[in-house]
Amino acid sequence: MEVTNRYITIKTHIDSAPKESHFELKTAALALSVAPGSNYVIVKNLYVSIDPYQVNRMKSYSSSHKATSFSVGICPGEAIDAHGAGRVVASGNPNFEKDDLVIGLLTWGEYSVLKEGKALNKLDPMGFPLTYHVGILGTSGLTAYGGFFEVCKPKKGEKVFVSAASGSVGNLVGQYAKLFGCYVVGCAGSKQKVELLKGKLGFDDAFNYKEETDLKSALKRYFPDGIDIYFDNVGAGMLEAAVANMNAFGRVAACGVISEYTGGLRAAPDMVDVVYKRITIQGFLVVDFMNVRADFLSRTSDHLRTGKMQAIEDIVAGVESIPSAFLGLFRGDNIGKRLVKIADE
Amino acid sequence: MEVTNRYITIKTHIDSAPKESHFELKTAALALSVAPGSNYVIVKNLYVSIDPYQVNRMKSYSSSHKATSFSVGICPGEAIDAHGAGRVVASGNPNFEKDDLVIGLLTWGEYSVLKEGKALNKLDPMGFPLTYHVGILGTSGLTAYGGFFEVCKPKKGEKVFVSAASGSVGNLVGQYAKLFGCYVVGCAGSKQKVELLKGKLGFDDAFNYKEETDLKSALKRYFPDGIDIYFDNVGAGMLEAAVANMNAFGRVAACGVISEYTGGLRAAPDMVDVVYKRITIQGFLVVDFMNVRADFLSRTSDHLRTGKMQAIEDIVAGVESIPSAFLGLFRGDNIGKRLVKIADE
Repeated sequence: MEVTNRYITIKTHIDSAPKESHFELKTAALALSVAPGSNYVIVKNLYVSIDPYQVNRMKSYSSSHKATSFSVGICPGEAIDAHGAGRVVASGNPNFEKDDLVIGLLTWGEYSVLKEGKALNKLDPMGFPLTYHVGILGTSGLTAYGGFFEVCKPKKGEKVFVSAASGSVGNLVGQYAKLFGCYVVGCAGSKQKVELLKGKLGFDDAFNYKEETDLKSALKRYFPDGIDIYFDNVGAGMLEAAVANMNAFGRVAACGVISEYTGGLRAAPDMVDVVYKRITIQGFLVVDFMNVRADFLSRTSDHLRTGKMQAIEDIVAGVESIPSAFLGLFRGDNIGKRLVKIADE
Repeated sequence: MEVTNRYITIKTHIDSAPKESHFELKTAALALSVAPGSNYVIVKNLYVSIDPYQVNRMKSYSSSHKATSFSVGICPGEAIDAHGAGRVVASGNPNFEKDDLVIGLLTWGEYSVLKEGKALNKLDPMGFPLTYHVGILGTSGLTAYGGFFEVCKPKKGEKVFVSAASGSVGNLVGQYAKLFGCYVVGCAGSKQKVELLKGKLGFDDAFNYKEETDLKSALKRYFPDGIDIYFDNVGAGMLEAAVANMNAFGRVAACGVISEYTGGLRAAPDMVDVVYKRITIQGFLVVDFMNVRADFLSRTSDHLRTGKMQAIEDIVAGVESIPSAFLGLFRGDNIGKRLVKIADE
C-alpha cells in the first residue's frame, strides 16, 4: 500500500525570528511496507510535540549557536524529527510489530520512517491518554521532574519562583514544588494563565509579567523573604531580577532561554550577587535524567491517578497546523503542553 | 603605657571608583592595657591583608549592593577590619596572653582593639614566615583551595582557565590545578605577570588579556578542545568568553568580580550555552570552606616544604601606604598576595 505523506520542512535555515513563510508543507509518496531484510520501522504519527528548542536546530551552522553541536541541526527540505506518539504500520525491526503503539522521536508529519529503532519505544498507555505520554509523562514531565528535584535540590518550605509557569514544563515544576511542600509563585503572560496557576494548579501566587514595569520590585513584592529556587525558562531580565531577589545558597535551574532563542536580550545577572549569596546557576537537558526516569514515571502516574497533578494540554489539529502552532509558542499562545494531533487513534 | 595608634579610615562611603582622597590616616591615643574584668585583646599589627572585596564594604547602604548584607559595611571614620597577623600586647581574654602571635580579623592600622576574641586565633607559624599565614596559608589560600577542589570538582587532565591568574587567589588556583594534574592556562595584565605564570609557577600557558582584541577567539586559541573549568576572578567579558568556550558539563567557580566592584561592566554569559552545555556557575565565599581547612593547611604546608608550591607575595611597607596599596589592586599593580607590613616582628 502506498500513501501520500504530508510533512513539514523549513525552506531555509532560520536565523531571524521564525515566520510562516520559513515553513513548507511537503508531500511524498510513501510505501507502507518494508523491504525484506530491512530494519526500518514505519509509524503513523498520532500526536507530535511542539517545543521552542526546535528553533535552535533551525539556525544555519555559521550563525548558529555553538550549543547546537549538542543537538542535531535541521536541514532545509528534510523531515523534522520531534517527540511524539504513533502506531506502527510496518516493521522490519524485530522489536516492533504492526499496530504497536510507540513513543519516541517521530517527525512533524503524517508518517515517520525510522531507519533504526533506537529512539523509539513501545508504549503502554497505562490507562492514560496518549497525549500524556508526549507531555506530562514524557519529556516535558521528565524535564520538570529532573530539573526540579535533581538540579534545584529543594527542601520543604523553600520559596520557589517559576517563569513561563503555564508552559509545558513550568506548570509541572510548580505542581511538583507544591506537592513537595514548597511555597510557589509563577509568572505568565496573561490574566487567563495567572488564573489557571492560582486556581486549578494551586500555586501560592502568580502574576502577569506584562503588567509589571520593574521585575525586580515585582519579585520583591511576591518574595519579601527572598527566593530560594528559580526555575528559569526565559532568561533575560527575569533571570536578572530573580538573582537580585535570591537568598543565600539560592539555586537557578536554567531550563530554557526563550528570550534568547529568537535573538532577544541576554541576561546579565549581577555576578556580585552570585558570589556573595553563593548562588548556583545550572544548565541541564532532559537526557541527563534517564537515571530518575522510572521514579518520575511511577510518582507522576500515581499523582495523576489520585488527582494530585493535572495535565494541562493545548492540542492543535492537523499536520498543516504545525508551523502556526510552533510560531505561537514564541507569542505565548499556548497554555500548557502544546501538541499537534495528526490522526485519530 | 599609652601609644598613638595610626589607622586608616574612609572619609565617606565610596560609591564611585575609589581614590586616595576617599581615605584618611587618623591618629588616636591608645592605652596598651585592658581594664580589670574586660575581655578585650589589644594586638600590635604586623601584617595586614589588602583585598579587593573591601571596596564593596565601603559603599553606602542605599547604593550598595544587596550582597553587602552578607558582609559588614564599613562606617566612615571608623577603623577598617581586615585579616592580618600580629602580636598580643595586652589581654583580658583568657585565651590570649601578652606576646602571643595571633592571626585573624585585625584592622588597617598599627594596633587592633578586639572586644571579643571570636575572629582571632593563636598562630603557630610552623616554621613559615608570618606573611604566609595571611596569604597562602590564610584566607587567600583557603579561597583558592576550596574554590578549586570543592566548587570546581576537578578531574585529572581537565582543562582549567584562571583569570587574574597572578593575583592572590588566582596564582594558587593555578598551582593547585597543576599539582592535581590539570592543564592550566592563566591570563593576567602584563608581560611580567605572564612570564611569572609560565616560568616560576609552571602554568601550561598564559596570556596578557590587554593584548587581545577578542577574548572569545583568544580562549579558542588557548583551548582548542574547550575549557572544563573556569575559575573567575573578574567577571564581565572574560566570563562571557569562557562560557562560550566551555565544554559540556563545564564549571565556573565565581570567586570575584573585580570588573563590577567599581562600577564596570556586567557579564552577560550566553544562557543558551549554559543550558545546552549544562554549565554550572557557582558563587562561593571562603567562610564556606571551614570544613576543609585542616586538609588545606596540611596539604599546602607540605607542598611549601617540598618546594612544590610557591608563595608569591607583594609586600608594601607602612600603615600610611594602605590606601595606595589598596587602590593599586584595581589597576592590577600587585603580583601575588598584597600585604602591608605594619611593624617588624
